[in-house]
Amino acid sequence: MPENKEKIAIVGLGNAGLPLAAVAADSGLAVVGVDINAERCRLINRGLNPIPEEAGLGELIAQHGGKNLVATPRFEDAKDCSTFIVIVPLFVDQSFNPDFTIMESAVRSLGKILKKGDLVVLETTFPPGTTDGKVRAWLRESSGLKDGEFFLAYSPERIMTGYSISRLREFPKVIGGTDEESGFRAYQVYKKFIANLHLVSSAKVAEMIKVMEGCYRDVNIALANELFKICTDLGIDFFEARDKANHEFCHIHLPSTGVGGHCIPVYPWFLIKEMEKREQFSFCQLLSASRQVNDEMIEYWAEKILRACIKVDKPLAAVKICIRGITFRSGVKEFYHSRNLALAKLLTEKGLDAYVFDPLLTKDDVEKKGFRYLEPEQADLIFDPFHLTFECPEREAAGQVDRRQV
Amino acid sequence: MPENKEKIAIVGLGNAGLPLAAVAADSGLAVVGVDINAERCRLINRGLNPIPEEAGLGELIAQHGGKNLVATPRFEDAKDCSTFIVIVPLFVDQSFNPDFTIMESAVRSLGKILKKGDLVVLETTFPPGTTDGKVRAWLRESSGLKDGEFFLAYSPERIMTGYSISRLREFPKVIGGTDEESGFRAYQVYKKFIANLHLVSSAKVAEMIKVMEGCYRDVNIALANELFKICTDLGIDFFEARDKANHEFCHIHLPSTGVGGHCIPVYPWFLIKEMEKREQFSFCQLLSASRQVNDEMIEYWAEKILRACIKVDKPLAAVKICIRGITFRSGVKEFYHSRNLALAKLLTEKGLDAYVFDPLLTKDDVEKKGFRYLEPEQADLIFDPFHLTFECPEREAAGQVDRRQV
Repeated sequence: MPENKEKIAIVGLGNAGLPLAAVAADSGLAVVGVDINAERCRLINRGLNPIPEEAGLGELIAQHGGKNLVATPRFEDAKDCSTFIVIVPLFVDQSFNPDFTIMESAVRSLGKILKKGDLVVLETTFPPGTTDGKVRAWLRESSGLKDGEFFLAYSPERIMTGYSISRLREFPKVIGGTDEESGFRAYQVYKKFIANLHLVSSAKVAEMIKVMEGCYRDVNIALANELFKICTDLGIDFFEARDKANHEFCHIHLPSTGVGGHCIPVYPWFLIKEMEKREQFSFCQLLSASRQVNDEMIEYWAEKILRACIKVDKPLAAVKICIRGITFRSGVKEFYHSRNLALAKLLTEKGLDAYVFDPLLTKDDVEKKGFRYLEPEQADLIFDPFHLTFECPEREAAGQVDRRQV
Repeated sequence: MPENKEKIAIVGLGNAGLPLAAVAADSGLAVVGVDINAERCRLINRGLNPIPEEAGLGELIAQHGGKNLVATPRFEDAKDCSTFIVIVPLFVDQSFNPDFTIMESAVRSLGKILKKGDLVVLETTFPPGTTDGKVRAWLRESSGLKDGEFFLAYSPERIMTGYSISRLREFPKVIGGTDEESGFRAYQVYKKFIANLHLVSSAKVAEMIKVMEGCYRDVNIALANELFKICTDLGIDFFEARDKANHEFCHIHLPSTGVGGHCIPVYPWFLIKEMEKREQFSFCQLLSASRQVNDEMIEYWAEKILRACIKVDKPLAAVKICIRGITFRSGVKEFYHSRNLALAKLLTEKGLDAYVFDPLLTKDDVEKKGFRYLEPEQADLIFDPFHLTFECPEREAAGQVDRRQV
């Protein structure tokens, strides 16, 4: 790695961190990527991309891996950097409280190599106040530095799996400091590799911006789900109505089996839990209702599936139902809070003859998740949770049904 | 009126009907406007515009009033028309059930002059199913015609007071028939004066489209209100966060004292009430929560006002509070479901020394509404419900406060 280049460290080379590291390296910065996964680091240093579904990432890793972008499992290898970007996952527990275990461990490890005058920027989506609260405390304790001896800022990742590189290159990105100097320094560093960068007044505002976006999505997906149910009950084609209702001032979303993944279903809870702590019990009525509407969609679809089963010429318990897809969204092999997996589980628990097929999973994968595998052609009824469509292979062969929504 | 022109009747020359009539007349159609208000009809026929706040309407009325657009209080004057557009108001009762009194009366009067082969198009926002249900029944009964002997369609007005002419000329407008022939005929007539016209599969779909738009607005205003409360509690500037959160996929609305007027706060109830009738009690959780969040905003603002009062150097009961605006929105002299009026009432009922000033109202108007009038300069505390700002004239004079939000 050339010695005269500005050196930054990126802690966490996951789905969000690696594209960021690759873009920074491509902008001419010398990047040290720190990740506990040593095998992943070896791959990257050999120029091999561990996230093939990320468009454009392969070329960047091939070009910069082991050169401008050096991956390492050891924090010490990053000790001569002066900017540290932390982008490791934050999960929530069963009660939707954030679980800071991984984050705290990463931040404390970083603290041990932190020097006077260094800058730390967090990218993981946080409950507002976390950077200047918990993260600052961990850094102070582990580094032995005092407040004011290091700079601290926040810039939420806004990527979307599969589109991360173009998002980083084009999409607006916000950044805010825990104080004015931190914000200014963080902006200067990020400006070197982020074109559409916006400095906001504080780290807390930047944290809130990301959470608000998630809330907007969750609420509007819940609205789409509610309007879909109402339209269907009234005999109205929701998709036709939505198509003509939407215009420059109206953005009705698409219905679904609910909302899964690590982001949208989690962020509203950051605010709901915080407002509960502050005893502002009436401040999250809509956010709470949205979570409930979205999570309950699997019951709506279970009922639809049951109704479709009745049309099959077999005793109910003998109708082979195939759920075609249990990942949380189409094309992404992730199961966190997947409503499609929850739907398959619900049908199984109700004693129906339910099976699973998923284009991203082998028979073995499906069985390891506790489901029975079935090729869709063997089923009496197929439900596609990504298109919300039903198929009935035998009746279709006989020309009895079309494939439209039930 | 030239005899060779195609003649259409527009029933209802109110805020929505008159701009439509003027645009149709301007497109070369001969329009008979029917309105029970004889004085309004006389004005129009003399080329005088009764809605001066409607940009561009004055010129059209001056040009076509009494010529291409003839207004009359008598349905008989429209009897040689073959297309009848009905655009009269629909109100809701205290329990938010639609009150069809005016609509039924207008439709039944129209039925009496309806001839075989005539086309009727409704424009008033309706609970989905109304055109092909109640309206068809009233027309059949009052005309003596059978189904199939007249054509019936629906095309929701999508205007916005002040922008109606440009909306009619540019904005997409949908139209749907109660049967295929009705839809086709209605489309042909409307195409003569609406440029951006879209035929949808049924009157019911067209009805739902308009209601869905209102629901989108209500839910997203409720979300903005909820996020505003949360931000304020967390010490975050909502407006800064919103400005940077919004982008091509995120459209967070503006907070307010709630939602008033005849449209947005009413339309969600069309669906809530219908789903209650159908015993689908879980289908409107979000729509109900949004109504509640928006209606309860006056309590939030009352509390804010109280807190601001505490900062004034006077006993609480002696602080002269001025609510600067009680119309449902700025610049429109309408009070239906006005949350600003409700806020002034709430403060008065709580025994505070509350007064009202409204730029659109005289002292006498204010007093007739049951409030005490006060010039803002005489108040100790002014709340502006349109900008959500507080002013404290005396403390400001002393340089003690700025005008930002409390």
